[in-house]
Amino acid sequence: MINKKFSSKWINILKYDYPELYETIIDLDKCVFTGKSLDPKTQKLIAIGIVASNYNSESIERQMRKGIKEFSLTKDELMDVLRVVLLTSGMPTFTKSITILNELF
Amino acid sequence: MINKKFSSKWINILKYDYPELYETIIDLDKCVFTGKSLDPKTQKLIAIGIVASNYNSESIERQMRKGIKEFSLTKDELMDVLRVVLLTSGMPTFTKSITILNELF
Amino acid sequence: MINKKFSSKWINILKYDYPELYETIIDLDKCVFTGKSLDPKTQKLIAIGIVASNYNSESIERQMRKGIKEFSLTKDELMDVLRVVLLTSGMPTFTKSITILNELF
Amino acid sequence: MINKKFSSKWINILKYDYPELYETIIDLDKCVFTGKSLDPKTQKLIAIGIVASNYNSESIERQMRKGIKEFSLTKDELMDVLRVVLLTSGMPTFTKSITILNELF
Amino acid sequence: MINKKFSSKWINILKYDYPELYETIIDLDKCVFTGKSLDPKTQKLIAIGIVASNYNSESIERQMRKGIKEFSLTKDELMDVLRVVLLTSGMPTFTKSITILNELF
Amino acid sequence: MINKKFSSKWINILKYDYPELYETIIDLDKCVFTGKSLDPKTQKLIAIGIVASNYNSESIERQMRKGIKEFSLTKDELMDVLRVVLLTSGMPTFTKSITILNELF
Repeated sequence: MINKKFSSKWINILKYDYPELYETIIDLDKCVFTGKSLDPKTQKLIAIGIVASNYNSESIERQMRKGIKEFSLTKDELMDVLRVVLLTSGMPTFTKSITILNELF
Repeated sequence: MINKKFSSKWINILKYDYPELYETIIDLDKCVFTGKSLDPKTQKLIAIGIVASNYNSESIERQMRKGIKEFSLTKDELMDVLRVVLLTSGMPTFTKSITILNELF
Repeated sequence: MINKKFSSKWINILKYDYPELYETIIDLDKCVFTGKSLDPKTQKLIAIGIVASNYNSESIERQMRKGIKEFSLTKDELMDVLRVVLLTSGMPTFTKSITILNELF
Repeated sequence: MINKKFSSKWINILKYDYPELYETIIDLDKCVFTGKSLDPKTQKLIAIGIVASNYNSESIERQMRKGIKEFSLTKDELMDVLRVVLLTSGMPTFTKSITILNELF
Repeated sequence: MINKKFSSKWINILKYDYPELYETIIDLDKCVFTGKSLDPKTQKLIAIGIVASNYNSESIERQMRKGIKEFSLTKDELMDVLRVVLLTSGMPTFTKSITILNELF
Repeated sequence: MINKKFSSKWINILKYDYPELYETIIDLDKCVFTGKSLDPKTQKLIAIGIVASNYNSESIERQMRKGIKEFSLTKDELMDVLRVVLLTSGMPTFTKSITILNELF
């Protein structure tokens, strides 16, 4: 199940060449997303907000895609995340993220 | 109601010296937090996550305080936000935020 | 006039799907660039400096293009902005921005 | 003249313990602020904008102080810089900078 | 041994209130610093460089202190890290870090 | 020798159009990488770590390439740098950098 979650090529390379690092990352990811109070969907929305506030196209796209696939996030929900990005991180990050969002829907 | 939300000294100075900028910020804040799908509490959690991933003590504390006051956020809920910060932004931001969290509870 | 300023595809999508957010952004942009003391050209130079110090190719290019179109910014003026970026933000951001600058002239 | 510009304690330590690094920094600073087209005041405004968009209280205060001392920057001029910070970098950096600005005037 | 490494108050709170998160962080830290080729001292120097390029006083101080204690890092070695910070991240981060360095020696 | 080090197109444009800025950058680069205690290879590893923690694909690739060419850095050594990036800057920067690393080897 965890394997399906990380489907990118890099995670496979990590798995075979650096297995102990791979295991650590899987554990970290699992530990992070099994919070005590918030459900994983809310945590994923938070992750998207953080990544979207950092200009990194590939990460924004990957996180949004995973959110849509795993939690059926809608365009309006992602747009509500981006509203917070606009307020906390400014127009250029918002603009970048909204462009990616439009390509996904 | 909005006035009570921004209670810091700087917002009052803005209000009297730069009223048009003040109005714009109030409008922006209102527009951001009246999303179409996510409730304001979820949006606040996202805002805390973004701010916590950026090393700025004062903002982290202000956002956490507002979240506790306005949405009765618990320590566990905030901790679940910080788990996401750990994964997406690394140990130093996590450490900084957890220190502030511990002072608030 | 404002519409011509934002000519990217995303702003049109925003305009029709999220009109209240669109209006807020137009108001924010107008309020920001009608400062009390600095002329809009100086403010645009500041915006370019900030964006250039943040590694985001698309935003750097968009801001530089707008500055050239709206304020007839010269290569030397933009280079003087990038000098400040070199000092305040280091070589990698400077290198990235100068590459974009060279493509525009 | 350059010495007066950098009056902080750290620059003196640098001068005596790492003279070649000190000379390089003095040269860099001089080269940056003798642009071909923009006057040093405009470049200083850009520097303040960049620093203000990065959450670093001490740098924001130092840059604003230097701008006020060397170029007699007014509160309204600095506020016009911060308007651009609000648009490009979001509320938390704006809030932090405006608090520092209010302490300086 | 690992416990002695993290001596801050926050790690103790984590240990008792969020033991599974505590274990994950300990594992992550151990996995990171048992690289295949670089010795832990070199990795610590890299960690200091990264943290120093991000304006966060507390993290810079904590990382430098740990480096001095665990690897007997000298002032000149740390200064050589900061030279790289100057080149890659600009003067404000360099200035901030050199101030902290001077307080430690 | 220094010319061979910077082989990108932008440095040539800088050399002919802005010779005094070119000289300053060459001097800065030389001064930074002739530290008192650390060898240039260690400093290059630090530079790669800092750049990798900042999401900028082009800079990450350029720095890794230069490190491989000038210091024969191995995949395992670069991976050990990225372990530190994972801990200090989080998964998205690590993921981005590991993807680039895999393309280089």
